[in-house]
Amino acid sequence: MPAAKRTEPPRRIRIAHPAPVVDGGRYAPKRTVGDTVDVQADIFRDGHEKLRAVVKYKAPGGRRWLEAPMTHLDPHVNGVRWGGSFTVETTGTWQFTIEAWSDVWATWHDELRRKVEANLGEDLSGELSEGVVLLTNSGSKHPAVKEALETLEDPQATPQAKYDAALGNELFEAMEAIQTRRGKTTLDKSLPLEVDRVKARFGAWYELFPRSWGGLKETEKLIPELADLGFDVLYLLPIHPIGRNKRKGRNNSLIAGPDDPGSPYAIGAEEGGHDAVHPELGTQQDVVDLCKTAHRHGMDVCFDLALNASADHPWLTEHPEWFQQRPDGTLKYAENPPKSYQDIYNFNWDTEAWESLWQAWLDIVLHWVKAGVKFYRVDNPHTKPFPFWEWLIKEVHKVDRDVVFLAEAFTKRAVMQELAKLGFTQSYTYFTWKNSRWELTEYVNELAHGEEREYFRPNFFPVTPDILHAYLVHGGPPAFVTRLVLAATLSPSYGIYSGFEHFENVPVREGSEEYLNSEKYEIRERALDGPLLPMIRRMNEIRRENPALQHLSNVRFLDAQNDALIAYAKQEPGNTVIVIANVDPHHAQEGLVVIPAQLGLPPVFTVEELFTGDHFDWRIGGNYVRLDPGGNQTHVLRVL
Amino acid sequence: MPAAKRTEPPRRIRIAHPAPVVDGGRYAPKRTVGDTVDVQADIFRDGHEKLRAVVKYKAPGGRRWLEAPMTHLDPHVNGVRWGGSFTVETTGTWQFTIEAWSDVWATWHDELRRKVEANLGEDLSGELSEGVVLLTNSGSKHPAVKEALETLEDPQATPQAKYDAALGNELFEAMEAIQTRRGKTTLDKSLPLEVDRVKARFGAWYELFPRSWGGLKETEKLIPELADLGFDVLYLLPIHPIGRNKRKGRNNSLIAGPDDPGSPYAIGAEEGGHDAVHPELGTQQDVVDLCKTAHRHGMDVCFDLALNASADHPWLTEHPEWFQQRPDGTLKYAENPPKSYQDIYNFNWDTEAWESLWQAWLDIVLHWVKAGVKFYRVDNPHTKPFPFWEWLIKEVHKVDRDVVFLAEAFTKRAVMQELAKLGFTQSYTYFTWKNSRWELTEYVNELAHGEEREYFRPNFFPVTPDILHAYLVHGGPPAFVTRLVLAATLSPSYGIYSGFEHFENVPVREGSEEYLNSEKYEIRERALDGPLLPMIRRMNEIRRENPALQHLSNVRFLDAQNDALIAYAKQEPGNTVIVIANVDPHHAQEGLVVIPAQLGLPPVFTVEELFTGDHFDWRIGGNYVRLDPGGNQTHVLRVL
Repeated sequence: MPAAKRTEPPRRIRIAHPAPVVDGGRYAPKRTVGDTVDVQADIFRDGHEKLRAVVKYKAPGGRRWLEAPMTHLDPHVNGVRWGGSFTVETTGTWQFTIEAWSDVWATWHDELRRKVEANLGEDLSGELSEGVVLLTNSGSKHPAVKEALETLEDPQATPQAKYDAALGNELFEAMEAIQTRRGKTTLDKSLPLEVDRVKARFGAWYELFPRSWGGLKETEKLIPELADLGFDVLYLLPIHPIGRNKRKGRNNSLIAGPDDPGSPYAIGAEEGGHDAVHPELGTQQDVVDLCKTAHRHGMDVCFDLALNASADHPWLTEHPEWFQQRPDGTLKYAENPPKSYQDIYNFNWDTEAWESLWQAWLDIVLHWVKAGVKFYRVDNPHTKPFPFWEWLIKEVHKVDRDVVFLAEAFTKRAVMQELAKLGFTQSYTYFTWKNSRWELTEYVNELAHGEEREYFRPNFFPVTPDILHAYLVHGGPPAFVTRLVLAATLSPSYGIYSGFEHFENVPVREGSEEYLNSEKYEIRERALDGPLLPMIRRMNEIRRENPALQHLSNVRFLDAQNDALIAYAKQEPGNTVIVIANVDPHHAQEGLVVIPAQLGLPPVFTVEELFTGDHFDWRIGGNYVRLDPGGNQTHVLRVL
Repeated sequence: MPAAKRTEPPRRIRIAHPAPVVDGGRYAPKRTVGDTVDVQADIFRDGHEKLRAVVKYKAPGGRRWLEAPMTHLDPHVNGVRWGGSFTVETTGTWQFTIEAWSDVWATWHDELRRKVEANLGEDLSGELSEGVVLLTNSGSKHPAVKEALETLEDPQATPQAKYDAALGNELFEAMEAIQTRRGKTTLDKSLPLEVDRVKARFGAWYELFPRSWGGLKETEKLIPELADLGFDVLYLLPIHPIGRNKRKGRNNSLIAGPDDPGSPYAIGAEEGGHDAVHPELGTQQDVVDLCKTAHRHGMDVCFDLALNASADHPWLTEHPEWFQQRPDGTLKYAENPPKSYQDIYNFNWDTEAWESLWQAWLDIVLHWVKAGVKFYRVDNPHTKPFPFWEWLIKEVHKVDRDVVFLAEAFTKRAVMQELAKLGFTQSYTYFTWKNSRWELTEYVNELAHGEEREYFRPNFFPVTPDILHAYLVHGGPPAFVTRLVLAATLSPSYGIYSGFEHFENVPVREGSEEYLNSEKYEIRERALDGPLLPMIRRMNEIRRENPALQHLSNVRFLDAQNDALIAYAKQEPGNTVIVIANVDPHHAQEGLVVIPAQLGLPPVFTVEELFTGDHFDWRIGGNYVRLDPGGNQTHVLRVL
């Protein structure tokens, strides 16, 4: 005897393998406002009963579950997959579940139909008597129900007349409309969905050191031009006071000269810590003003959240319990031997005072959120505890759901995935090191079509102040063009760091990924006059004009019959963009880009090169392309 | 501030994607006694700390968790997968989990080693002071610890002497042996593993209608010969009293003649129901005797559990609440229109009296378990509720864990999978309809290497009393030989129904899968004298002599450069068997069976044909094979 007494037998319907889901519901798949969410599940039961199912969904803070119908996707192959969809209209945590039940009328209808069609001459009056009960119990006043009942209960009606009455379409629809949900079953628990603002998915970023541009007020003056160039996010390297003790000199030297400004990552001085502004850059009010101006131009300001302290950070004396002190009294500086950051101290995340430490960081972020900073590029999140980030991001989102966190973690794939799962809105990627056709194809296919597509949003940066790849060092301007087009067309979010448009590519020494005279350790004079800017402006325009470039999982790589040419199509309804890039910065390359029939294009079609305005006739099958570092290194083609 | 006050910060280690697991732990993977269970998981944390991990496991009813070490499987590719194993020695539900922690000494040791090796000339006395604390706090009396402490605390010792002392291997092992489990983390919940007797995985079945062999006593006399033929399970079609009302006649005719015995699936008559024995077959004591004799010969008896009632079943009057009555008072007979079973009534699984109905079936099974019947082939389990089966199998296993349930469900893949997941020990399969090379390759690869391998144990029957495939109808004896060898060598469990060894292949009409003069509706005179029996005997011997044939997931299909030849290798340590079968029953076929280097065989090796005793020289690469319906239709080769 089953342990617990129940009034009705346990549910017969199983709902399994729902999607979208991340780790069985432990984490939330990500979407952006306006997205249609495709929900699927295996739905089945024992026996031959007909099933019905709906998606039930609830908006953040909503009280009511809404419903969308699900349909059986693959009945013809004896499949059990059902699908339905709904649209998410606000940011925040949505919930969804699936409800399925047995459709008593449809089951009865189907059995009767099959028996009548088999025409075995059986007496079906038992079956018809069931139908009468179902119709009567429905309580429906629908004329089709009334009419059918009259025929079924008419002793004069022929069997065929009764079958016709019972199997009528109008009757079927009337009964379906009022069906009770027999044996109704739902998922054990509803599943979450995190919905972000659209800029969490689609945006162009520009990264700069404010001190190289004359401080915050001067940076604010760049906003109209940056907006005109098509940038959505202005990302500032840390703007806080910089430690003097153990300050680093130019080119990462251990001893700073008297005028060396130090690394902005060595945060904290007598002027303050993470909630302060470096006096030479400006004031708190300047941050507020900068953000206001940016918002007025449709842009956002991104801060660099580096959880480091210089030797002069006020917290070292105010909260020694937050730091790792050695038995001999020395502090541990940040390091990943043999790499060392002698000007930076780590926090001790295992401290017993962890709660006040966590709270202090939350206060810092909320301080800047209040000032108007809605984007945070987080430095090395993979060396701080996962539970901390999960908590911090949730707490910040309680105050302002529009805040975006970009994880700067270049580490094990599983760790990068975990950070994305637990809440980081976007992530840096391995893109910077993927330069050949096969590397890019493999990696982007994984991001776009693998399990990560549900929660890991890449942001492709061709360079960062830490990473100047040998491909750019040796490839020169044609390499920069290729990398720009790849970053901006493969990933809906991409960004450049302000040396990029100048083709800056001299490393501190051969084989190093560090820049010579890196801005991390010295002030450079910068202006928005790089020779690549016109192309960048047009690239950003193209991205905005073509919805296909605003998504990731719509990419399909194409054969180009030449390993030096990478080609792919991206498609959204009514918009097909085909990109071809020469990944060889030294030689012209030619090939045949193969358009497969599955793209759904006509046999012959016209494409427009979106940078040059040229028109070409293309077709399903091979299309000749020649790309030349001396002329066009890429094609971005829109199908007309 | 986090909601709940805690004394230490939340765990930093993540343990994800453990295996083996079925649907996140909702169901139990299956193993058999003596199996080594390979456990894996992704294990990682933030930062660069060194991790350690163990599998913890507990035997059924056990009180203590035992531990087995895990090792990092792919550190060289920055992977996070760890693996370990343990052996299951008894039947029942085992539990396992994974525990991981940060290894403080190894982390310290690794950082110091990297710094010393980088040889940056830094002052490492801070690092060494940490080492002293770790050694002192360990409380170890190990001489290596004592010795290292002396050097580290000796003001006269050189830095190099201190590094050598700190980084010594003996010291490392001493410290590893006594490490505390810092930041210890386990899976949220332990995972189940169902362990069955070996015969649940590996066995040869013989299926017969006892009435065609003279009843239970005569059937008992077959046991020594069946055991000698190599059979492990004797499967009896239902032996209960058969209804007279609406009894079916020969060849499924709706009207039975006076001497027609009826279908044994129309269970129940005035002589009793599912707990009774048909008086013409024998007595309850005969069942007990049969089981005793079978067990004495190492065999088991399997009953056919059909949850049907004839119109004369005692329960129809004793428990009308268990049946589906129509509004007009008629009962619903079993059907899947246009197929009808007019002699059989369905139970109403939605009855309010479901608890007494469930209990009645449990009582029936336990009645026969008590008589010695440990195997149950369950008729159409997919038309009864999933929760019922999950409960029934668990309850039976509480009484006798050796009971085996074989699901006879030919239906949607997802439903067959669900039955296997919820507890059925074995399952019938689509094998009967897979006759071409590609069909077999695809299907067996799915079963052997897909997710189902964890819980779905196939039992391959070339025929059943319900299914005579056209391949056998048109292929004749060569087709029977091929199907026997495929069933017996692809699947560890296989079975034949007693017309098979006589090459019985006449359908009731062309295009039907029903036998002419099916034993389901009439009594046939049977004896163990079929012409295929000598080959079957040898086949069973070969299966017992070759461990490779006792497992499923060790199969690897081989190219034979001819679509009419199917070839595969199965390997266990020290035993490689290569099988080639001609799936064309009409023509000789030749090909080159390609042995890949990955099998680990020497460049040239000798194989023995296990039916003929012939020896051949084979090699890595192509090996010529010719199979002829007139001579050898298959090769079963053992690598010597």
